[in-house]
Order: sequence, then C-alpha cells, then structure tokens
Amino acid sequence: MTPDHTHDHSSCCGGGDHHHHDQSHHQAAEGRADLSGPAESPITVEVTRGSLVESVHRARACIVDAGGHVLARWGDIDAPVFPRSAIKSLQAIPLVESGALDSFGLGDEELALACSSHNGEARHTELVRSWAERVGLTLDDYECGAQIPYDPATAEDLVRRGEAPTAFHNNCSGKHSGFLTTAKHKGERLKGYVRYEHPVQQRILGVMEQMTGQDLFGAPWGVDGCSIPTIGIPLGAIAYAMARIADPVDLPDARAEAVTRIAAAWGRHPFLIGGTGTFDTALMEAADGAVLVKGGAEGVGCAVIPEQGIGIALKIEDGAARAREVALAALIRSTRALTDAQWARVPQLLTTPLLNRAGTQVGEVRPAAGWPG
Amino acid sequence: MTPDHTHDHSSCCGGGDHHHHDQSHHQAAEGRADLSGPAESPITVEVTRGSLVESVHRARACIVDAGGHVLARWGDIDAPVFPRSAIKSLQAIPLVESGALDSFGLGDEELALACSSHNGEARHTELVRSWAERVGLTLDDYECGAQIPYDPATAEDLVRRGEAPTAFHNNCSGKHSGFLTTAKHKGERLKGYVRYEHPVQQRILGVMEQMTGQDLFGAPWGVDGCSIPTIGIPLGAIAYAMARIADPVDLPDARAEAVTRIAAAWGRHPFLIGGTGTFDTALMEAADGAVLVKGGAEGVGCAVIPEQGIGIALKIEDGAARAREVALAALIRSTRALTDAQWARVPQLLTTPLLNRAGTQVGEVRPAAGWPG
Repeated sequence: MTPDHTHDHSSCCGGGDHHHHDQSHHQAAEGRADLSGPAESPITVEVTRGSLVESVHRARACIVDAGGHVLARWGDIDAPVFPRSAIKSLQAIPLVESGALDSFGLGDEELALACSSHNGEARHTELVRSWAERVGLTLDDYECGAQIPYDPATAEDLVRRGEAPTAFHNNCSGKHSGFLTTAKHKGERLKGYVRYEHPVQQRILGVMEQMTGQDLFGAPWGVDGCSIPTIGIPLGAIAYAMARIADPVDLPDARAEAVTRIAAAWGRHPFLIGGTGTFDTALMEAADGAVLVKGGAEGVGCAVIPEQGIGIALKIEDGAARAREVALAALIRSTRALTDAQWARVPQLLTTPLLNRAGTQVGEVRPAAGWPG
Repeated sequence: MTPDHTHDHSSCCGGGDHHHHDQSHHQAAEGRADLSGPAESPITVEVTRGSLVESVHRARACIVDAGGHVLARWGDIDAPVFPRSAIKSLQAIPLVESGALDSFGLGDEELALACSSHNGEARHTELVRSWAERVGLTLDDYECGAQIPYDPATAEDLVRRGEAPTAFHNNCSGKHSGFLTTAKHKGERLKGYVRYEHPVQQRILGVMEQMTGQDLFGAPWGVDGCSIPTIGIPLGAIAYAMARIADPVDLPDARAEAVTRIAAAWGRHPFLIGGTGTFDTALMEAADGAVLVKGGAEGVGCAVIPEQGIGIALKIEDGAARAREVALAALIRSTRALTDAQWARVPQLLTTPLLNRAGTQVGEVRPAAGWPG
C-alpha cells in the first residue's frame, strides 16, 4: 500500500480538493492495481438446502483506505448505489457539527440513535420520546411515517394492547430526531424537512459530497422508506467516506471532531444501533469496538475499522438482507479486525443457519468459494 | 413446432418411457432449437427507486408443451431446482388417484386447498378443520409445524385474542391434510408421513418421476419449510409436468383423470389457493380460468395454460418473491392467455408499485428490457 494520500481522478473515490492532476496519481493508480486483489467479478453468497445450493446472491464490494486507495474490490464499484440507511453516520454529521447536539444537552446515546435503524424496542422509543421532549418536538413534527416495530415481541405487544405504532417506532426515528433537532437549532422551518430542497437535506448533501469526494449535484436520487432523499453514490466512494470516519486525518478540524464523536457513539452503543437479534448489534457487541457496522435496505452494508483506518461498502445486487449480513461478516473477517475468539461468540453471523417451521435446520446462508480471508 | 411428441434424451424434460433412442429425437432437437427463441441468458427483473435501478433479480425460465418441446427458455433450465410449493398440484395426485378424496366424501374445495399455499384466513382454516374432522384427524397428526398466518389481519387478530397459531394456520395445511387423508385411506401409519422414506412421500416421488420424465432416484433433496422432502428437478422438467396437467393426453387414464380434476379444482377456487392480496389468487381471478398459477418459496413459480397445452416454470436465482411474481406475470402475458381487458384488472401484477412507509410510491418492480411479449 502506498502511503501517498493523494487522490486521483481515476479513483472511484474522487479526490476532494487535493492535487488532482499531479504526477503522483500514476503511482497511486499503480498502488491501487497492486492492492485490488485477484477478484474483480462479483462475489456470491449461497443459500443451501439439503445437498443443493438453492439460491445465489451476487455482491459488489470494496475495501478502501482514508487515502482513497482501493485495497480490494469485487464487481462494479463505480456505478451509483443508493446507500439507504447504511450511511446514517454521515447524515448525523450536521447534528454534531452545527452544535445542535450540545446546545440541547444531548449526548452519546442520542447520537448513536441518530445513526441507528432500531428495532422499536422500549429502550429505543423511550429515548426518542425523551429526546423529542427535550428539544420541544411532538409526534406531528416527524415525517418518517409510522412503522410497526421490527422487534417481533414489541410488535406483538403493541397489537395485544390494541395500540397503533407511531413515528417513534419507525426504525429511522433517531435519524429524524437528529434532522429536526438540527433544523430547530438553526431556526429552520420544520415542516418539509424530509424534502430534497429543504436546508436539512441540502446540508447533508453537502456533507455527503465532501465525505465521498463526489460531485452529487445532479446525481440520481430516490425517496427512501422514511421519505427523505437517498442519493446515488459509487460504492467505492461510500467505502471511502467510511474510511474517513475511521481515519479523519484529511478532514477539516470541525468535521474530524464530529466524525470522531459519531464513531465513538456508534461503537459504544451497539444495542441502540439495532436491537435484540439484529446483525449490527450482535457483530458490534462481539467486536468490542473493533468494528462499526451498519446495514441498509436493499442489501447495502457499511463497516468502519478504526484501528486500520479502512472502510468497507457492499451492495447485494438483488437487495437481500440475508446475503448482506453474511457478506459483510466475511469481508470484515478478511481484515482480521476481530479475533477468532470474538467470531466464536457469533458464528451464526458468518454462516446463518436456516430453520424450517418445525425448528429443524434445513440449510444455511454462507459465502461461496472464492472469498478473501 | 414439430407435432412429433417423441421425447429425446437430450431434452430437458426427459422422456418418460417412450422411444428414447429412435431417429426422431434429432428432428425433435432441431425443432426445439428453432423454438428456443433468441434469449438464452437469464432475464432480469429490476427494482427502481426514483431515477435509478436499485436492485436486479435474475430469472431462469422456460415454456414447454406437453410433448416436451421447449418453446422458449432463458438461462440454465437443466440444473436441478427445488420446486418447493410450486408443484403442490403434483403432490395432490395420489389424493385423487388413490380414491382417498372420494372415499371420504371430499370435493373440489378440499382438492384446491391441497394445492394451496394459503393465507391462514378463516375460510382456509375452517375448511382444514372440517376436512380433518371428516377424516378423523387431529391437530397432533399434522407434522407441518405451526405458523402465524400470512394474512396480516388474521395474524393480528390471533395476537389480539392471545391465541397461538396452530398447524391449521400453516400455509401448507391443505397439502398435509391431503397426505394424511391418503395415508389413512391406504391404512398406512400416519406418524412420520413427512419423511422421505414414508410411503406417502415415496408415492409422490414416483408421481414426480412419471410427470417430469426424470429419474429422481438419488436426485438432490432437502427438507421443505413444512418438513417434507423437496426434490431437485430440472426447471425444464418442472415446466413439462405443468404442460402435462394442461394437456394430459400422454398420461395413463387414471392419472389423466386425476390431473384433470386437480386442474379444475385449482382453477375454480383461486381464493383457496392463496387468499386476500396474494399474487396467485389475484392473477387467477383476473384470468377467469385461462391460467393456473402457483408460487413457491425461494422464487419458484409455475403456470399451466390449459387452452394452449403448455406449462411454465421459473426460478429467481436469488429466491426473491417480488421478482417471481413480476416475472411469472410477464411470461404469462407473452402467451396471450389473458386479454388486455383481463390484465387491466390487475396492472399491479405486471409492474408492482413500491410504496414507502408514508404510502408514497417511490419505485416499482418491473421486467427489464428484453422480455418476450
């Protein structure tokens, strides 16, 4: 790996504002070529049943460092991908950087929840409720829509009590609390904060551009499950942004400080990021802070490995969550960020058993041959 | 298309017991080559969000006639596929052929339910309950496992009343009623009827071999969601079996009679096959009997077009139901079995809108370019 942090135009990760055209980009390109590894085609996750591989998922993925060097890549990492909820950590930057978090006396837990896709369990919804109260927000301010909690026990409990879920149960309610808190702090109109042209979303767009090193003006975008814009970004650039969370050395001071606080909150509160039985929570609890992970809808996953200063991004081409989880675990394992003893706590994340309705194991979800590590 | 119904070994559909080695298989092979159409690679279903194709599903599929001629094919149709619940119609053959259905005074509705993956709505579970009572079966005889109903309203109702789901709610309870009824009629031990070596499953294996024209002894198999064996069968051979339901002219009399009764029951009771809001029910209700469809887990789908004597089988490589539905609709549309007016009743089956949590349409699931029709 070249220690040269110069970005070059040919890199998937763009270059921010440094030295696009100097000679060193040729060295960087050579370094990248050396580091790209043998696998350029998509890697696959297979779903077995009995003696047969029943279904197959194709993954595009890459591992990138904070200098924008692609350490490994599989499949097309240049095409735009909607990062969905996998980059909530980036969307939380303005909450910290604007001073909104501190000005309302909010802390690490709220910040973790802003980065979460939570299960809607009591600990999550109570935290959202108290946060909203502290900032002076009501349920009506939330534009994410109501959602029945992901956690089955909590969902059943709601139904049993005859209660309808609210926006607080929405897995994105922490993120939306962050949006609303920032808007309130800035004195912006709350109504319409989910819209592309609202200052809240425009501010995030700017953050995304800077963190990914991409010009996102005119980038393809769509409306996410919680009604905010999701912006199409090359997978390599998403991994690059994650690497910059791991190693913010190239970032302006205020942003470096913000991402450092976000990374700390993200790592310290695995339960708030997901909840009971979720992949993100289980993996981070096993990792003791050695890795930060976040899944998103349609098979997108991100990871930050602070110790190594690298970021990982992947997209399951068909969008399947079961494949995203196993693929993300395999890629993280290849980095050696976790010890064997740590993996031994969560073997089901590396190879997921498939049970039938009688509870019998009938197959598994596993990386196919050819994966690193 | 050659009118010659001779099967040849090179056909995906095997040959049953007719003239494997005569000269005509060369003609048949030529005929097949003519009919295979331009598309040999998998076709794809795309999931859009805003201006981007967010996810892509790959489908293998074929359309086959009752003579075993492949009229159209996409991707590998020779590799074994677990047909899962898509071939419940074949698994119902012994129920009719053995005389069990008639001897217990059961009729069309029970036969349709034997072919179903039902929603667990009251109409389904009441029918299973009365069927079990008539045959002298109790819940304890059912080895499919309990399952919370697919129908959300019914599921909520159960939870609200504090009731646990039973095996009757299992989407396969009609099929299992058929298994148990046949075993009872034959005087076989009920216990263990889900096991590969039990006469119930061995009888079905024999039926599957004959209907698909495949030697399935030693074929790969796995345990299905409801604990019975699912046998790996080439996709082309699955479509061939469906074509023989459409046109049973080559079948022995008793079997031809059985599949004719099954097809009639399947077509007459769309609601029993699935239920409220299901693809199979909606498509068959729109089709007024012109097509029989049945989906299975992991992206398998089958269709029978009686009027044309053809069968369709498809497998979404990654197993996604959303893609199976749109792909099956596209293939059926290509056969012109439904009129435009019939399709106009169910536009959402051809292109499925994707709504977010606020109920806004944010994208759609649709066939990519290159599909027939």
